[in-house]
Amino acid sequence: MTDAAEKVRLSLEEVRALAEAVLSRHGLSERHVKAVAETMVAGERDECASHGIYRLLVCAHTIKAGKVALDAEPVVHDIAPALVRVDAKGGYAQLPFQMGKPVLEEKARNCGIAALGINNCVHFAALWPEVEALARDGFVAFAFTPSHAWVAPAGGTRPVFGTNPLAFGWPRPGPHPYVFDFATSAVARGEIELHRRAGKPIPLGWGIDAEGNPTTDAAAALEGAMLTFGGHKGSALATMIELIAGPLIGDMTSAESIAYDDNAKASPFGGELIIAIDPARFLGDKAAEHLARAEAVFENIVSQGARLPSQRRYEARERTRVHGVEVPAKLLADIKALLD
Amino acid sequence: MTDAAEKVRLSLEEVRALAEAVLSRHGLSERHVKAVAETMVAGERDECASHGIYRLLVCAHTIKAGKVALDAEPVVHDIAPALVRVDAKGGYAQLPFQMGKPVLEEKARNCGIAALGINNCVHFAALWPEVEALARDGFVAFAFTPSHAWVAPAGGTRPVFGTNPLAFGWPRPGPHPYVFDFATSAVARGEIELHRRAGKPIPLGWGIDAEGNPTTDAAAALEGAMLTFGGHKGSALATMIELIAGPLIGDMTSAESIAYDDNAKASPFGGELIIAIDPARFLGDKAAEHLARAEAVFENIVSQGARLPSQRRYEARERTRVHGVEVPAKLLADIKALLD
Repeated sequence: MTDAAEKVRLSLEEVRALAEAVLSRHGLSERHVKAVAETMVAGERDECASHGIYRLLVCAHTIKAGKVALDAEPVVHDIAPALVRVDAKGGYAQLPFQMGKPVLEEKARNCGIAALGINNCVHFAALWPEVEALARDGFVAFAFTPSHAWVAPAGGTRPVFGTNPLAFGWPRPGPHPYVFDFATSAVARGEIELHRRAGKPIPLGWGIDAEGNPTTDAAAALEGAMLTFGGHKGSALATMIELIAGPLIGDMTSAESIAYDDNAKASPFGGELIIAIDPARFLGDKAAEHLARAEAVFENIVSQGARLPSQRRYEARERTRVHGVEVPAKLLADIKALLD
Repeated sequence: MTDAAEKVRLSLEEVRALAEAVLSRHGLSERHVKAVAETMVAGERDECASHGIYRLLVCAHTIKAGKVALDAEPVVHDIAPALVRVDAKGGYAQLPFQMGKPVLEEKARNCGIAALGINNCVHFAALWPEVEALARDGFVAFAFTPSHAWVAPAGGTRPVFGTNPLAFGWPRPGPHPYVFDFATSAVARGEIELHRRAGKPIPLGWGIDAEGNPTTDAAAALEGAMLTFGGHKGSALATMIELIAGPLIGDMTSAESIAYDDNAKASPFGGELIIAIDPARFLGDKAAEHLARAEAVFENIVSQGARLPSQRRYEARERTRVHGVEVPAKLLADIKALLD
């Protein structure tokens, strides 16, 4: 039995090879293997362990539950001058995003603003890799996706929303764009699960029990409902994401996704909405001047000791590029067992 | 001297006539008078007193401070297939919105998604009238504007952001669209001012003093900085709004707006970003079917006793249409004094 605190150091190449091996072993087609593994490498590289190779366990479970089209060939539909849809055909979201991205960018360059809807996809990843990629290409980017209905509206008692994340990217002249990505739930569901496993109480405000009462019991909150961050404002944002990345693009709401899941406890199924704006079309030859003025906003934040949202990830990236990553030995053993 | 609790009943027509008279008396040109007064009528009609005729006092002050171009003739610039800019030429934001709206809607119908940037405008109004108008025309709508730098970033001590509101509208088959509009500050600045006047403490979380310490002293918070709602998540949203309704459209940040104000305590000056999406372009002939599925989201919220964000306003609208509105006698006296 491995020590719970024991860690193993892996290079990012080893992380990639492991992820690709596990995903291939579970029958995912080559193009999906590459795209999905890259997301996990990005998670480990940025020391976001919850979106790193831990997700191989989640993928293996979702695949075994029969909830992923393993060799789905996404189809790109050019539906309007500033709209593109990619039908993921039941596969993971990464490959359809890769296929839709150049079309989205071309449309944003041509029209000034454009939107990409990904439909019928399995979603387990963070949204920051997508808005970061668009911001690196010079676009202002937004991304939204519902998940499974786990979160109650403000003033309510029963789950309606998913953890419904919202991500934003802004191009910067320096090495890294400004990027944030957060759940509209008070915390990630995994955080409450970790408290349950550890037998620790959760703070008030994270969840309510099945009767709708505030609770500090993690198990009771998992049986009841999670809460949004920020009270009625967070609840309004969660509703917005439910609508714009669900019915607006002709895809499932979080309630429909969890009904489709039918207690398989697989990753959410549904859609994602991504919006890109080309600052050059708004600003013309003054784009560089105005983007430089945006730098004053960041300077006003960091000069007083406050942090930018993605700062920690970018610092981790510098470290792991050279030194690789540390992975819990127990997690690595669990993942390697998937290769048997 | 009037009793502080005394109220006077006015019909909405009387509200409109009073607002138009005061605005005309202060030299605003006819087109602006109509557009600005309409916003205040909407505020009273929906019993949002803080955005009703109380704002006549704010307008009178801002005009006397020389911060409004009274006869500005906004100019519409068609800058890209899905982008329109309206240069407000230093006047109020309402008329430029009215002029930009049909262009925005035509572009959203043609391209699927489109954006309207209003530049060089004076802004004192709520954003819900604008997203509601777009949603009534069948569009999914977002609106954002910075204000004056009053709000500190999470982990910081000094103001960087305005109260930076975010509004969203969604078309519904029933009589009213789904609409929300909230500040990304923990509360409205006026709320803290009301506490100061009443000599009442403010809750922790609304503001910090000039040294960056949490405070329950309203005056200290007004001298120091307000805080965002929702901790680092609200702070990230405030940053996003600062960027997309400031530098992205070539307009002022909240820090630049308050510097331009130069202690005149006038309304914020700068820009506003509005985005519209045409669901019919995303969904084609399935639009009605998917918008009906969105109704299930609302039903899931209200059936458990939770409220939709605009419900109170719509209920007020039914009342005031018939019975008119009640205005504090003291406020009415202060407004009538502006006509002398």
